[in-house]
Amino acid sequence: MSGFGRVALIGIGLINGSLARVLRREGAAREIVACARRRATLDRALELGLCDRATTDPLEAVRGADLVVLGTPPAAVVPAAAAIAAGLADHAIVTDVGSIKAEIVRGMQGVLPGPDRFVGGHPVAGTEHSGPDAAFDTLFVKRRCILTPTGTTDADAVATVRRLWELTGAQVDLMTPEHHDKVLAITSHLPHLIAYTIVGTVADLEDREKTDVFKYAAGGFTDFTRIAGSDPTMWRDVFLQNKEAVLEMLGRFSEDLSALQRNIRYGEGDALFDLFTRTRAIRRGVVEAGQAYVRQADDPLADEP
Amino acid sequence: MSGFGRVALIGIGLINGSLARVLRREGAAREIVACARRRATLDRALELGLCDRATTDPLEAVRGADLVVLGTPPAAVVPAAAAIAAGLADHAIVTDVGSIKAEIVRGMQGVLPGPDRFVGGHPVAGTEHSGPDAAFDTLFVKRRCILTPTGTTDADAVATVRRLWELTGAQVDLMTPEHHDKVLAITSHLPHLIAYTIVGTVADLEDREKTDVFKYAAGGFTDFTRIAGSDPTMWRDVFLQNKEAVLEMLGRFSEDLSALQRNIRYGEGDALFDLFTRTRAIRRGVVEAGQAYVRQADDPLADEP
Repeated sequence: MSGFGRVALIGIGLINGSLARVLRREGAAREIVACARRRATLDRALELGLCDRATTDPLEAVRGADLVVLGTPPAAVVPAAAAIAAGLADHAIVTDVGSIKAEIVRGMQGVLPGPDRFVGGHPVAGTEHSGPDAAFDTLFVKRRCILTPTGTTDADAVATVRRLWELTGAQVDLMTPEHHDKVLAITSHLPHLIAYTIVGTVADLEDREKTDVFKYAAGGFTDFTRIAGSDPTMWRDVFLQNKEAVLEMLGRFSEDLSALQRNIRYGEGDALFDLFTRTRAIRRGVVEAGQAYVRQADDPLADEP
Repeated sequence: MSGFGRVALIGIGLINGSLARVLRREGAAREIVACARRRATLDRALELGLCDRATTDPLEAVRGADLVVLGTPPAAVVPAAAAIAAGLADHAIVTDVGSIKAEIVRGMQGVLPGPDRFVGGHPVAGTEHSGPDAAFDTLFVKRRCILTPTGTTDADAVATVRRLWELTGAQVDLMTPEHHDKVLAITSHLPHLIAYTIVGTVADLEDREKTDVFKYAAGGFTDFTRIAGSDPTMWRDVFLQNKEAVLEMLGRFSEDLSALQRNIRYGEGDALFDLFTRTRAIRRGVVEAGQAYVRQADDPLADEP
């Protein structure tokens, strides 16, 4: 079988919806069944052609499925696995797309009948938009997708999930769930936390000042608002479920910010200049690692209205 | 006279270089004279066709000039004005492009022979690149340019400088130097400060972790590195010269960050969700104010390699 047989998508928002579009385009699924809590979401998914069948019943959704993708917000991934467990075929492979991994991978042990056929996954891609209407089939092109198998994960299951993500155009990497959470805490979670904070600080300004902030946002603030426009439910879950690594990185950041604040207060220009020169070198490292190029060329955010 | 006569550009980097390209394209200057400290910079400016004449001598540069644009880093603007003062014609209009305004406008009083013909200016535009090679003639299109005349500034001087910036495609706004510094502290200076800090935090990570950060930077970190790749000299000056407003906004931000940190530590999901919902609304405000569109369509950063 070159395809993935019957695929059950639990949750049909930006990520699973985009995955559905890829499966459609490639003719890689014999049938796509979507499951969501709200009937209106499923009706829309059907209208958009994201699935062949749609049901609000998790057990019905996974019956006879060869591959199940849990596409819910992070905190709902393990509960969703619990809800489908009784309906899973023996050979079914289960994966997820949650932005945190350690807590999810641990949670699966007590919940799934065959936890070794679960492969933790995280496509590092997204836009500030959510829901089935936000889905598009190039979302994952040239982006990274991290898989986090453990020592006991079935090798065939890993190979299948890897094949799924490679089909989307993503570059697949393997690492432990714990390492994933640490790396993402600094590259993604902390930046989001900071963007949410500064945009929140602006929200508390007086109306007249706020109007001016909108007007002159191009000076740097725009980038932060874009990040801080991300899905509230998902990000609440991320911070709570990756608490330890986020607080650790936030602690380092706060110390560094205090030091910089002190440099400014006491007019220590040389210290500022040295730091800004070092950060410029880091920028070069990121550009050379190809991420900046990817962002410009392929980031869906670059096409937003 | 529809043009600007003889124009002297003190400093010939990204901003003044781009201004030169506009003046050339529009045939709006009878002669462009560039002045810089380093001969190599001037040779390059001549090679690029940014000026007709080039000199390292400020007095020679402004002799007979109708309009002088001080395009140095913020801390060098008032010293540059002092260096040209003795060479200025009586009718010469002087303006600058510094990112902070109150300290510069105050400084001109004791330095220029005719401080009323000085008009403080700040084009809110830029890229992470600097120097004459970074200049291009659409840098200011659809961007804001803020002018900060005082109660005694000559009305004709304001009209001339306004005409100059409108020629570049910028939208010109007038406000007091103090209001400018306050608005920019939150829209630009604080975002830069925070971006510098988080990128600096990464610079202190161990090598193996740093490599992974580069690899997965697309998760949010890339935006920060772009901001933190900005010119070190200019930004050192900005933070030191707008110290008061920056420290005030930084104080608010730090309080808000501590509150958020506490929410995470104690698992207060509702508080996180509420904040993230509010920031999403702010994002919509910025998009509606047109800045996000401008960024996508015209921001030169969108074309970086």
